Amino acid sequence: MSKISGFVEWLPEQRIAELRWMDEIRRVFESYGFCSIETPAVEEIEALLAKGETDKEIYVLKRLQEDDDSSDARLGLHYDLTVPLARYVAEHYNDLVFPFKRYQMQRVWRGERPQEGRFREFYQCDIDVINNNVVPLHFDAEMPAIIYEIFRRLEISDFRLHINNRKILAGYLHGLGIEDANAVIRVLDKLDKIGRDGVLSQLQSNLGLQQELASRCLLLASIRSFDHSFVEQVRALGIKTDKLDEGLEELAFVIDSLSDLPQGVVLADLSIARGLDYYTGTVYEGKLVEFPSYGTICAGGRYDDLAGAFISRKLPGVGISLGLTRLFAALLAEGRVKVGPKSPAQVLVVFPNAERRDEAIQTAKTLRERGFNVEMYHNPGKIAQQMRYASRKGIPYVWFPPFEEGGVHEVKNMSTEEQAVASPDTWEP
Amino acid sequence: MSKISGFVEWLPEQRIAELRWMDEIRRVFESYGFCSIETPAVEEIEALLAKGETDKEIYVLKRLQEDDDSSDARLGLHYDLTVPLARYVAEHYNDLVFPFKRYQMQRVWRGERPQEGRFREFYQCDIDVINNNVVPLHFDAEMPAIIYEIFRRLEISDFRLHINNRKILAGYLHGLGIEDANAVIRVLDKLDKIGRDGVLSQLQSNLGLQQELASRCLLLASIRSFDHSFVEQVRALGIKTDKLDEGLEELAFVIDSLSDLPQGVVLADLSIARGLDYYTGTVYEGKLVEFPSYGTICAGGRYDDLAGAFISRKLPGVGISLGLTRLFAALLAEGRVKVGPKSPAQVLVVFPNAERRDEAIQTAKTLRERGFNVEMYHNPGKIAQQMRYASRKGIPYVWFPPFEEGGVHEVKNMSTEEQAVASPDTWEP
Repeated sequence: MSKISGFVEWLPEQRIAELRWMDEIRRVFESYGFCSIETPAVEEIEALLAKGETDKEIYVLKRLQEDDDSSDARLGLHYDLTVPLARYVAEHYNDLVFPFKRYQMQRVWRGERPQEGRFREFYQCDIDVINNNVVPLHFDAEMPAIIYEIFRRLEISDFRLHINNRKILAGYLHGLGIEDANAVIRVLDKLDKIGRDGVLSQLQSNLGLQQELASRCLLLASIRSFDHSFVEQVRALGIKTDKLDEGLEELAFVIDSLSDLPQGVVLADLSIARGLDYYTGTVYEGKLVEFPSYGTICAGGRYDDLAGAFISRKLPGVGISLGLTRLFAALLAEGRVKVGPKSPAQVLVVFPNAERRDEAIQTAKTLRERGFNVEMYHNPGKIAQQMRYASRKGIPYVWFPPFEEGGVHEVKNMSTEEQAVASPDTWEP
Repeated sequence: MSKISGFVEWLPEQRIAELRWMDEIRRVFESYGFCSIETPAVEEIEALLAKGETDKEIYVLKRLQEDDDSSDARLGLHYDLTVPLARYVAEHYNDLVFPFKRYQMQRVWRGERPQEGRFREFYQCDIDVINNNVVPLHFDAEMPAIIYEIFRRLEISDFRLHINNRKILAGYLHGLGIEDANAVIRVLDKLDKIGRDGVLSQLQSNLGLQQELASRCLLLASIRSFDHSFVEQVRALGIKTDKLDEGLEELAFVIDSLSDLPQGVVLADLSIARGLDYYTGTVYEGKLVEFPSYGTICAGGRYDDLAGAFISRKLPGVGISLGLTRLFAALLAEGRVKVGPKSPAQVLVVFPNAERRDEAIQTAKTLRERGFNVEMYHNPGKIAQQMRYASRKGIPYVWFPPFEEGGVHEVKNMSTEEQAVASPDTWEP
């Protein structure tokens, strides 16, 4: 942890683990054909506020000596990667090929009051598919497969993605004759946090719903199933509208498309809404089954209009965002992240004195050319000191080039302590 | 280019090229055993000013709604990676293994007035070796080898690293009886920019040196050699001090150690000083021979005291910093960066209708498991449209799973237009 509260930094061994995560995430995104983009850390404040998001959390930039030029006063650090994506797509519209599939792994900043598990600076990893007018529903089913693959590679086995479709909620509530469906949806979305009684009470006291109506709302939100049996359960509630039908069909398609994934990874959960009115169809919320207290670790969904604030084109999309830093920090604290060596080196080449330096350098060079990461201690003399360095950094092999003319190379496995003759041209760990 | 001046963003195909660069740079750093660290974008302003650097360029953070809490007013965006490194080493001193070798590839921010080739946000790629009390001189010779390897992999063949040693300048000037050696060094450092006459004139008119003395300063700064013959040339000037001897010996060691590199990559250049008083021994300045107008594209050197402002320990080091964004942008503009496809995908799997979707998904899955990046268009129907998508994104292969039960897989090479029967289990591009 850095001493500035809310800003995290890792020790080398932790950073190596974080990099391994980021490499895996990137590899999965690319394996599905998503292309990296990066946007500046900075956007115009008007752009950051275009979605009407709360303005509390934005960090504004000011030059330390600003008297001579106030032109920067309109700049702020981005607080998510969605607004920058919208601005990017609008700005480069003519240079992009649609469907545009991008991933973005960048830090974002929020000037929140720091509290446990909350950071003011953190990495988000986002993927989105954007297209003109229509994005095939199949992308809604591809997102969970991508996210699951990431968690599989990170060896996080208790990952579960809760999936719903906003049309089910909206269609059902409309069928019940409820006018302000969004207000009700926002309450239902809290089922996980405030429980059934909390939801019932808020629906009645805050929104003025009759008890029976509130109960019928809750009945829908309580439905969960690992397969498409949620459809029958909803039908049994006796409401039928076109929108509800559409939502059920879409969600069933997504759930059925994911039947290849291990049981339990994907759950149709009709309480999930994602607070934002922004989403219009599929919605996702990822959680860890064994650590519900971590809350939502990834989230996303389908939207009809990405960039309305920036371009007069209809650009629907579907995407998902993973809160990397928060998840990594939490699992690290739980001891669930393997933290290993403090160096990327596989081999430390040692040498006894300056006369043998050239031989050592050539050995390191040969090993590097063969793709190994190789350090030299560069301070010859005490071999024990060089060995201790390798051991403290977690470098798994120590290489001894011939200590005299005509001698042999030897390599020592630091964990088994075995030492054997080897050639830099052919050695394999 | 983003519309906010001074902030750059790349199109997908350019970003793929930038990522390739960053991957190569990282791979080279790691191949020498340097470990990644990242520090927050933000430091306390007092820390940013601790080195006494000009404060003009710092961006200060302010929360958009700050009335309730002014505690953030002391935070600013880092403008380089050296101050954060010093703070990091001091803060985590007890958790680090020394010699501490880190690389850091992060954006930095400077609130400068934008001008051509100058950015307000850009990537720097830094490596440094830090140790208690002593860093072996051999690391001074390793830095140029690392940097050369990067340029070799990036296929930038006209890279040249100018190397000098501050002790040569200081010792020589001292031998001439000049008191304010740093003032003279700062003028000599401009030889490249203002020429011999400019240097002579500034030494005389600004610093009040006699013409003969000014000429003798210039004689030293004019010495350049690809091997260690600079030593004899300096000796011929008839000055001898301990510091000069030390500097000559160190520089000769560095240059001799690099004799493996191709002729012309490394140049002993006795005008190089790096303006900062910070450096105390070896100094580096990298340039492109064919594009001198790009100026310095990487720079660094040896310093005696990294973190004196943060910790009461003597931590000398040697390092080098590469201005990635500036170099990449310049070479991109010159057409010297290969810009290829707009997608990381190697294969697009197409399918004719919804009934064949499952077969297509299975095919994509098999290919992904074998390590290929595979896209699906997900909108079946017109095959021509799917082919056009592959072609516009630069995806090199289009895969046709059997269009009917019992049919065969075929794959089309989009550049040769050859199409052949293939199996997803065994295909190789």
